[in-house]
Amino acid sequence: MSNPLVMHPQRLFASCPTQRAIATELYEAVRSLPIISPHGHTDPRWFAENMPFANPADLLIKPDHYLLRMLYSQGIDLETLGLSSAEAGDGLASADPEQVWQVFAAHYHLFRGTPTRLWMDHVLAEVFGVEEQLGVDSSSRIYASISNQLGKPEFLPRALFERFNIEVLATTESPLDPLIAHQALQADPWQGRVITAFRPDPVVDPDYEGFAGNVQQLAALSGEDCDTYASYLRALRERRAFFKSMGATSTDHGHPSAHTEDLQAADCERLYRAALKGELTSGDAERFRGQMLLEMALMSIDDGLVMQLHPGVYRNHNPQLFTRFGRDKGADIPLPGEFVRQLKPLLDRVGNRSDFTLILFTLDETTYARELAPLAGHYPALKLGPAWWFHDSPEGMLRYRQQITETAGFYNTVGFNDDTRAFLSIPARHDVARRIDARFLAQLVAEHRLQLDEAHQLMQDLTCNLARAAYKL
Amino acid sequence: MSNPLVMHPQRLFASCPTQRAIATELYEAVRSLPIISPHGHTDPRWFAENMPFANPADLLIKPDHYLLRMLYSQGIDLETLGLSSAEAGDGLASADPEQVWQVFAAHYHLFRGTPTRLWMDHVLAEVFGVEEQLGVDSSSRIYASISNQLGKPEFLPRALFERFNIEVLATTESPLDPLIAHQALQADPWQGRVITAFRPDPVVDPDYEGFAGNVQQLAALSGEDCDTYASYLRALRERRAFFKSMGATSTDHGHPSAHTEDLQAADCERLYRAALKGELTSGDAERFRGQMLLEMALMSIDDGLVMQLHPGVYRNHNPQLFTRFGRDKGADIPLPGEFVRQLKPLLDRVGNRSDFTLILFTLDETTYARELAPLAGHYPALKLGPAWWFHDSPEGMLRYRQQITETAGFYNTVGFNDDTRAFLSIPARHDVARRIDARFLAQLVAEHRLQLDEAHQLMQDLTCNLARAAYKL
Amino acid sequence: MSNPLVMHPQRLFASCPTQRAIATELYEAVRSLPIISPHGHTDPRWFAENMPFANPADLLIKPDHYLLRMLYSQGIDLETLGLSSAEAGDGLASADPEQVWQVFAAHYHLFRGTPTRLWMDHVLAEVFGVEEQLGVDSSSRIYASISNQLGKPEFLPRALFERFNIEVLATTESPLDPLIAHQALQADPWQGRVITAFRPDPVVDPDYEGFAGNVQQLAALSGEDCDTYASYLRALRERRAFFKSMGATSTDHGHPSAHTEDLQAADCERLYRAALKGELTSGDAERFRGQMLLEMALMSIDDGLVMQLHPGVYRNHNPQLFTRFGRDKGADIPLPGEFVRQLKPLLDRVGNRSDFTLILFTLDETTYARELAPLAGHYPALKLGPAWWFHDSPEGMLRYRQQITETAGFYNTVGFNDDTRAFLSIPARHDVARRIDARFLAQLVAEHRLQLDEAHQLMQDLTCNLARAAYKL
Repeated sequence: MSNPLVMHPQRLFASCPTQRAIATELYEAVRSLPIISPHGHTDPRWFAENMPFANPADLLIKPDHYLLRMLYSQGIDLETLGLSSAEAGDGLASADPEQVWQVFAAHYHLFRGTPTRLWMDHVLAEVFGVEEQLGVDSSSRIYASISNQLGKPEFLPRALFERFNIEVLATTESPLDPLIAHQALQADPWQGRVITAFRPDPVVDPDYEGFAGNVQQLAALSGEDCDTYASYLRALRERRAFFKSMGATSTDHGHPSAHTEDLQAADCERLYRAALKGELTSGDAERFRGQMLLEMALMSIDDGLVMQLHPGVYRNHNPQLFTRFGRDKGADIPLPGEFVRQLKPLLDRVGNRSDFTLILFTLDETTYARELAPLAGHYPALKLGPAWWFHDSPEGMLRYRQQITETAGFYNTVGFNDDTRAFLSIPARHDVARRIDARFLAQLVAEHRLQLDEAHQLMQDLTCNLARAAYKL
Repeated sequence: MSNPLVMHPQRLFASCPTQRAIATELYEAVRSLPIISPHGHTDPRWFAENMPFANPADLLIKPDHYLLRMLYSQGIDLETLGLSSAEAGDGLASADPEQVWQVFAAHYHLFRGTPTRLWMDHVLAEVFGVEEQLGVDSSSRIYASISNQLGKPEFLPRALFERFNIEVLATTESPLDPLIAHQALQADPWQGRVITAFRPDPVVDPDYEGFAGNVQQLAALSGEDCDTYASYLRALRERRAFFKSMGATSTDHGHPSAHTEDLQAADCERLYRAALKGELTSGDAERFRGQMLLEMALMSIDDGLVMQLHPGVYRNHNPQLFTRFGRDKGADIPLPGEFVRQLKPLLDRVGNRSDFTLILFTLDETTYARELAPLAGHYPALKLGPAWWFHDSPEGMLRYRQQITETAGFYNTVGFNDDTRAFLSIPARHDVARRIDARFLAQLVAEHRLQLDEAHQLMQDLTCNLARAAYKL
Repeated sequence: MSNPLVMHPQRLFASCPTQRAIATELYEAVRSLPIISPHGHTDPRWFAENMPFANPADLLIKPDHYLLRMLYSQGIDLETLGLSSAEAGDGLASADPEQVWQVFAAHYHLFRGTPTRLWMDHVLAEVFGVEEQLGVDSSSRIYASISNQLGKPEFLPRALFERFNIEVLATTESPLDPLIAHQALQADPWQGRVITAFRPDPVVDPDYEGFAGNVQQLAALSGEDCDTYASYLRALRERRAFFKSMGATSTDHGHPSAHTEDLQAADCERLYRAALKGELTSGDAERFRGQMLLEMALMSIDDGLVMQLHPGVYRNHNPQLFTRFGRDKGADIPLPGEFVRQLKPLLDRVGNRSDFTLILFTLDETTYARELAPLAGHYPALKLGPAWWFHDSPEGMLRYRQQITETAGFYNTVGFNDDTRAFLSIPARHDVARRIDARFLAQLVAEHRLQLDEAHQLMQDLTCNLARAAYKL
C-alpha cells in the first residue's frame, strides 16, 4: 500500500484559523449546489450514445493537454503516452493503455504544485474511490480498479452527469457541425441538459486551415450561396439560428487578438472575396477577423446569443509536434494582450448597450487590472470571464480576484467555466473554484472589508447566479 | 433598522494575530497625525466661500467618477444619476437628488470588495455618524440625516477642513486660471492652508481642446505675446511664478505617455508654430509634449517647483458618453506604460541632479518592479508617487509596496496622495493608506525582516515626513 | 552599544504558526547542505592567490552595485563612496575606506525592506560575529572588528570557501580571458572546486565595445584567422573546448533581448563581415546576435555545455555615470521582455531535444506566467533559471514560485544562482533562497496542496539536486 490518498476537507483555504473557519462555512453552503458549465469542450456523443469509456489511459491521460505538455517537457515522447503520430498512421495501434498509465504514474511527482495534481487526485479519490496515492507501487492496482468501474452502469456518461449534479453542460461546435448528437439528445427522453455553443472560427478566420472550403460547406449547409458578403452573413445567421434551436445560448471566438473593426461595406466585400481566394495579407486577415467580431456582436443583438472572446494564443508553436500529432497537444503559448485600442471599434458601436453581452477572457494577466477591469467596470456590454487555461488554478484564480475586484467588482464577472474536455474532472474543477472563491471572500470578511452575510450572498452568486444570468441559462 | 454599520478598528490589517497586533500598534501611533494632501482636485472655492454643500447626491455621488463608472457598467443611465446631458441643456433641472440617492443605495452591493465601499462607509460612519448600513431600507433615513447635518455650521467646508486635521491641501489648476479663490484665501484671516498646483496640460499639449486659443489666453494673462517659442516659455515661467506666489510647490503633468525629448532650438520653434496652426502630426504632437516635459524640468530647477508626471491614460474612451456628458465620467482607461526609453532624454539632462525632483506615477503595475523601482533606485532626481487611481486601493497599495520596496526602498517614495475631488472622503483615503502601510510594515516585522522601532520610524515618515520633504511643504 | 543585531532563526517564514512550524522543519533539513553555485561573478584570483582581502569598504561596499545604486539615488556621490572617476585618473587614491564605511553606516536605513539589508546583516552577524546593528554609533567598532578579522588566516579566501561549505563555485569569463587563475587552480593541490563559465558577449555582440578588435584577439588565441564565418565559428568552438578543459559546464549570454535567428549561410557570412567592419544596422546587429545564439546552441549539442540566457537589460542607462565610472555601477535598467516569438527560430531547430538545455532568465516578471512557464512546461530543451537580479529577493522569489509553478512545476527549474561578485554574501543569498523555498512549500503543505514528505524531497531537489543535474555538476 502506498501512502493514503486523502482529500483534506479544508484544502486550499488559507491556514490562518480565522480565515479558514470562515472559508469552511462559506464553502459548505455551496459545495452541493448544482454545476453550471456554460463553456467547455466535452464530446456530446458521450451523452447521446451513453457507451462506457474505454480505459483509464484513453479517458484520463491522452486527451489532456495539461498532462501531455508537462510529461513532454521532461523528455517523454508522445508515442510513449499512446498518441499516434502521422507517420504511424491513424489506424495503427499505439502504446498499451496500462503501460501509458504506468509511465504517467512513474512521473506523477512532476505535477506537484500544479492544478493537474489537484484535479487528478480529486478524480481518483472522489469519482473512483481510490484510497492510496498514485505512484509506481500503486499504479497497477489503481488501473485495475478504474478499469473495473468503467464497465459498470453507474460509470456510464449519463450516470456520471447525474451524479456530478450538472444542471447544464455546454459543448462547443463549429458552424459546419451537423450537431447529430445534440439532435439525438433533444429527441431523447433523458433529462440531462447538454447544449451546444457556436464557435465560428473555421468560417470567419481566413487563416484557419481550409477556410475557403469551409465556407463552401457553410453555403451547402445554410442554403445560401455565400458568393457575396451579404449572402455569407445570411448563412452565418442561419447557422446561429440552428445552433440556437439546439439549445445554444452563446457564441465563442478564439482569435489571435482582440482586434475589432468597423469597416465600410465595400471594404467588407473586398476583404471577403480576397479571403475566399486566399489572397489576404496578414494585416487584412486580421482586419477581416476584426470585422467578423463586430458582425457577430450585431447578430448577437438580434438573436440574443451571448458572445465570448478567448484571444491571445500562439497556436501550434511547435511545428514538429504539430506535423506529427496535430492540434491541442500542449504547444499553445500565450501572447501579450491588448484590449483598450483593439476593442474600441466594437465598443464604439455596441459597448453602451445593455441588451448585448461580450464576455472577455485573457491569458495575459497584466491586462486584468490595467485594461479589463477598467473596461468592464465602465461599459454595460462587457463582462469578464473567469481565469482561463494556464490561470485556471488556485494561484491564478486568486490573482484574478485580487486584480479584478477592486475596479470591476464581483458583478461584472460571470462565475466559473471549467472549459475542459476532461469530463471526469468537471466536479474537481468547480470544487477548486468554489474553494478559492470561499477563500478570497473569507479573507475580506476576516479583514473586515465585507460582512459575513454579504459573503454568503456572493458565494451563491459566484457559484450559480452570475453564470445563469450572464449565459441566459 | 438595517444591519448596523460598524467600522472595525482593525479593518484592513492581516488576520494573523501576530501581524494584526503589530499593525494595530503601528497604526495607532499615526492615526491622529495631520493630513498632508499635496496633490488633489478639490474646489478651492469651497474654502474661499465656505458655503454649505447642497445635498447628499450633489456632494457624494455626482462628482465621483468611481461611482458613476460602476453604476453605468451595470446599465444605469447617467441621467438617472442626476447628470445633465448636452441634449438636455446645461441649465435644465436633472433628477431629484433624493431619487439619485435611492438608486445609489439600491445598487450599493455592486461596490462590495471595492475601495469605494470602504471610503463611503467611512464617510457615512465617521463624518455623518450613520449607524446602519446603506441599502434600500435605510436610504431615506440616511439621506435625511446627511441633509440635515449639511445645513449646520460644523459641516461647512472650513469646519470640516479643521475637523479633518488637514495640515495642507493642494488643489490643481490650469495656467489659465486666475486663481481667484486662492487669492481670496490668501487675503482671508482663516488659517487653513490651501495651495494651488500648476497643471499646464491645456497650454502645452497640442492635442488639448482649444490649444491655440489657450495659448492666446496665456499670452493675455502673462503679458508675453507668445509669438515665438522663447516668448511662450517666458509666459509659462511667468505663470509658474504667479502660481508659486499663490502657494504652489509643485507642477503636474497629465500626458498620454512618459515620452520626453531634448530637441534643438530650431525644432522647438518649428513644432511650436505648427502646433499653434493645428498642423502637427500625431508624432510631432508627442514630440512637442515630450519637449515641454524637459522645459518644465528645466524651469523646476530654477524656481524649485517639484514636478509630477501622471502618464498613460486613454481619456474619454467612450465617445457617446463624452459627447453627451463631457470629461471625467468614468470612461478613462489605462494604457501599457514605458519609462526606460521614454524618460531617457530628460534623465540625460537632469536625472543626476539632487536639486530637482520628478515624481512618477503609473497605471501600469507591470512597470513597478521592472522599470520604476530600478529607475528611482538609481537616479537622484526621481521619486515614486503612491499607487494611483485604479490602484488607490488596499490590494493596489500592497502590490505597490511589494513590488517597489525591495529595489527602491521606502525613501525613494513620497507618502500618500488622495488625488480626489471628493472632499469628504479625504480622511477615509488617508486612513486606508495608513492602515495598509501599517499592515505592510507589520508583516516585515512579524517575519523578522525589520525591527519594530524601525517600523515606527517608517510609519512617521510614510504618513508625514516623506510628503513634507518631497513636496517642500 | 547600539541595538543588538539578531538574526532570528525563523526569519522570512510566514508568521502564521502552522506555516512557520512546517517551514522551520523543511529549512532545518537543508540549512547545512553544501552550496552549489553554478553561476556567479567572483574573481578566481582570490582563490588562486589566497591573499587577504584589503579592507571592509573595498570588500563589502565598492564592488556592490546594489549598494552604490541606492546610495547614489539619495544624492551620495560615487567619489564619496571611494570610487575613482575617469577624471581623477585610475591610480589616484580615493576616499579613505573607513570614511566610506561611515557614509554607508549613516545611510543604512535606506536599505530597510531590501535584500541588501538581509544579506549585509547576515554577513556581519554570521561571517564576522558582529553583535550590534550597523549605524552611526557602531560604525567604527564594526569597521575595526572586520579589519582585524580580515588579517587572520581563517578569513583568507580559501578558508572562507571551505567554511561556507561550497561544493562548487563557477566564475564567468570572456573567451578572450587566458584563465590564468583557473589554470593555477587546476595545478594547485587545494581541493576547492572553482570552475569557469563561457561568456562570449565581447566576441558575438557587434555592439560590444571593441568588437572587431576582440575578434582579432579571438583569432590570435584560437589559431584560427577568423576571416570567414566558418573560421570564426571554429575559433569559438576551440575556446569553448579550452573553457571546458578548465572545468566549464556552461555558457552564458547577456543579450539585450531573447531574439534568435536561423539564417542562411550566405546571410551569416554577409552579416559577419559587415560586423567586423562596424557596418551593421541596429536591426542587423540584432539578427547577428540572434544567429549567434543558435550557433551556441548547436555547439552546446556537440560539446555538452549547458546554455544560459540573461536577456533584457538596458546597460549603462546613465551616460554621465558611465563616462566617469564605467560599467556595473547601478545604472542598468530592465526592459520589457518577449520570448514566444523571439525564441521560435532556435526552438524550431533544437527545442525538442532532450540532449540540450537552455536555461532562461528574465527581469520582466510579466513573462513568468504568460510565456516562460508555458514554454518551459512544453519544450524538453528549456528550463527556467531562478528569480534574477532585482528579483533575487524574498518577494521576488515568492512571485517567481507563485507564477511559475502551476504551469511549469518544480522540475523545469534549476535551483538557485547567487550570481554575485560579493563573495562574502554567498551564504546569505543561498540562505534566503532556502528560507523562501521552505516558506513556499510550507504554505502548500499547510493548505493541503502537497504532502509533507513530498515537500521534504522537493527541498533537497531545490537546494542541490536540480542545480547539479541542470548544470551537469
